[in-house]
Amino acid sequence: MSSISRQAFSANGINYQPSAKPIVVICMDGSADEYLDTTMAFDRMPNLKKMAIAGYRGMVRGALPSFTNVNNSSIVTGVSPAVHGISGNFFYDAAKDQEVMMNSAEYLRAETLLAAAANAGRKVAVVTAKEKLRDILSHKMKGIAISAEKANQAKSETHGVAGVEEIVGHPTPVIYSADASLFVLRAGVAFIEKGLADFLYLSLTDYMQHTYAPDAEESLAFYEAMDAEIGKLLQLGAIVGATADHGMNAKVKADGSPNVLFVEDMLEEKFGENGFRVICPITDPYVKHHGALGSYVVVHVNDKTKINEIKNWLAIQPGITEVYDKATAVRVLEQPEDRIGDLVVLSGRDVVVGRRPQYHDLSALDGTLRSHGGRYEEMVPMVISHPLNAAYKMKAAGDPRNFDIFDFTINGTNA
Amino acid sequence: MSSISRQAFSANGINYQPSAKPIVVICMDGSADEYLDTTMAFDRMPNLKKMAIAGYRGMVRGALPSFTNVNNSSIVTGVSPAVHGISGNFFYDAAKDQEVMMNSAEYLRAETLLAAAANAGRKVAVVTAKEKLRDILSHKMKGIAISAEKANQAKSETHGVAGVEEIVGHPTPVIYSADASLFVLRAGVAFIEKGLADFLYLSLTDYMQHTYAPDAEESLAFYEAMDAEIGKLLQLGAIVGATADHGMNAKVKADGSPNVLFVEDMLEEKFGENGFRVICPITDPYVKHHGALGSYVVVHVNDKTKINEIKNWLAIQPGITEVYDKATAVRVLEQPEDRIGDLVVLSGRDVVVGRRPQYHDLSALDGTLRSHGGRYEEMVPMVISHPLNAAYKMKAAGDPRNFDIFDFTINGTNA
Ligand SMILES: [Zn+2]
Ligand SMILES: [Zn+2]
Repeated sequence: MSSISRQAFSANGINYQPSAKPIVVICMDGSADEYLDTTMAFDRMPNLKKMAIAGYRGMVRGALPSFTNVNNSSIVTGVSPAVHGISGNFFYDAAKDQEVMMNSAEYLRAETLLAAAANAGRKVAVVTAKEKLRDILSHKMKGIAISAEKANQAKSETHGVAGVEEIVGHPTPVIYSADASLFVLRAGVAFIEKGLADFLYLSLTDYMQHTYAPDAEESLAFYEAMDAEIGKLLQLGAIVGATADHGMNAKVKADGSPNVLFVEDMLEEKFGENGFRVICPITDPYVKHHGALGSYVVVHVNDKTKINEIKNWLAIQPGITEVYDKATAVRVLEQPEDRIGDLVVLSGRDVVVGRRPQYHDLSALDGTLRSHGGRYEEMVPMVISHPLNAAYKMKAAGDPRNFDIFDFTINGTNA
Repeated sequence: MSSISRQAFSANGINYQPSAKPIVVICMDGSADEYLDTTMAFDRMPNLKKMAIAGYRGMVRGALPSFTNVNNSSIVTGVSPAVHGISGNFFYDAAKDQEVMMNSAEYLRAETLLAAAANAGRKVAVVTAKEKLRDILSHKMKGIAISAEKANQAKSETHGVAGVEEIVGHPTPVIYSADASLFVLRAGVAFIEKGLADFLYLSLTDYMQHTYAPDAEESLAFYEAMDAEIGKLLQLGAIVGATADHGMNAKVKADGSPNVLFVEDMLEEKFGENGFRVICPITDPYVKHHGALGSYVVVHVNDKTKINEIKNWLAIQPGITEVYDKATAVRVLEQPEDRIGDLVVLSGRDVVVGRRPQYHDLSALDGTLRSHGGRYEEMVPMVISHPLNAAYKMKAAGDPRNFDIFDFTINGTNA
């Protein structure tokens, strides 16, 4: 291990003083704390339990909207969406009258700590389940950056590694599977074992959590299998920090059908036609697991003089929990001003907000609608393999964020 | 057990179909889920773990403000504060220009399911740690109603039981202690053992949670001792449902000092003197553990034309997370319109809101400031000893409330 660089580095004003041990941060996509609670109650996560006992387990607050790319961007930069600029998969550029996809690094306004670690001599590897995240996570980074989804397409020149299936010992998984996430963890284990990486970000996918409740055997078996890989990382001497990008809740009525408020229809019915554009920033090419329905939308209002009236009306509609105008959303929700709307709307624990029925294909769902995006998916677990030092114990007791996970894992332990 | 009444009853429109087993609902005051997580990670809550495996463990949403008497009132009535009227320990009656304490049953606007159960032939016992809650919880109820705090003062005519110390086998505890809560559980065990009760509400106190973080040995030992009593309840064949009134968070700055926004001072500095009255509805005679500081205050504004301006300004102050006018608070926060203020203000996970420094004696605190009252103490655990039936599994997957706990415990299992 003596070849691992201990050189300090910084990114976005945060300093990192890494130890010479392998450092692994895992984003357990969609892992509401209930997934850990339930699997641990059945004694099927012995390694995570060991981490909780020897190190730390607590709750941290994610970035809003509680979406995957927003929080992954926060985790690799250490800052909020207001700073890094990624506020969802889509935003509406009013000046250009265009809905713009922001899944590429050109929309990222902050440097990544992964790139900084690589520049400081660490062997960095980013493994993400979905190919779509690879571009942002590996922005300007020297090292390995692959997705499980396209593992067999990785080339040395473009991905920092080739022959991934052979290295990992598993075939490229289909994206809608438990294996998609397990492949990410297995790749992390293999890269450390083979000396290919000593500083890793492993970002899973939430297909399983969208599809299964915590007590479903499919979910229990999935977390158990994840735990086995975490055990291998610990065996390899890694300092492991695990958190989630967001939680997950069932978004259904008492009869099990999707509990959706179609906000553009609601607004037209109340205030007249053609005055509104509702953007669902959860929308992405992978709709199978959520039908582009989450608990957060933004609203663009043509007649700006009506914004306050519309805000007040929306705020008292059943199922809607929070409505902010742009200025307040920028402050309270830490949003980039130019990539939200005139209003930002959040919905309840069991409620999703959508645009109009025709924009959402619910027939593609596997099982019942489980989703995220709002306040009730904001709090997520953080588990660290090593004891926190005094300063980070104090920090953990305040308002720690999921995007402090590298800070906690690197600076928070004396390992 | 054949003498236990199975007669159905209803309260506030909710029907209850009890089984002939003893039914015990426990309000584990201030039990943020982290307390269970941490104690269970150390294998020190074997009985709660058994309940989670054999029955159900999940998260439920409490009533706001996330205060003790608000949520206890909701639990025993099955309805929100908008219906039962108890919105804190204090409210300001603007018409009378009086700050009114609402800890007595005269302010309760709903019947209790405990009284209804007693009328249906159940032997009901209410045991609360603090004497102050006894009046509301036992409103119009035939049966036993005692507090741990004044256990030795219970008389048959007024409390439905006498000689409590002998029955329980423990002396009356001091209120600022782990024993205050443990006495409540021990009394519940004794009352079932001795055939004095078959339908129990056991409401603990949160002194320990205000004082100790989940990983403190004092807290671990406390939860372990609670678990032992829960084990005895299970041994006695009871159906046990456990939840919390609210969570608990440290409310401190990075240096460990209290993180307080004094809202009346802030408003005067910005908008001029004598225009505001800030009410801290957490204020009560027991200030030792929180200094009357929680994450929720209401504001009365003299000049009603300024309400909106003040709301918008407050909403973007760092540390403040939500601000509602009266009409919106009534809907979104389920508040009784005549017992809140012109504005309702909630603060962040690590922030409390107060009136002015002179109203809050922080020197009385035992240790660091840990408190509740806001959104980040809204979600709490629910654990049921028996498997949920299909309808209540569905209900648990929606937006279940902590004040559905009697409904879940009675109607949600087929025990
Ligand atoms: Zn995700
Ligand atoms: Zn309480």
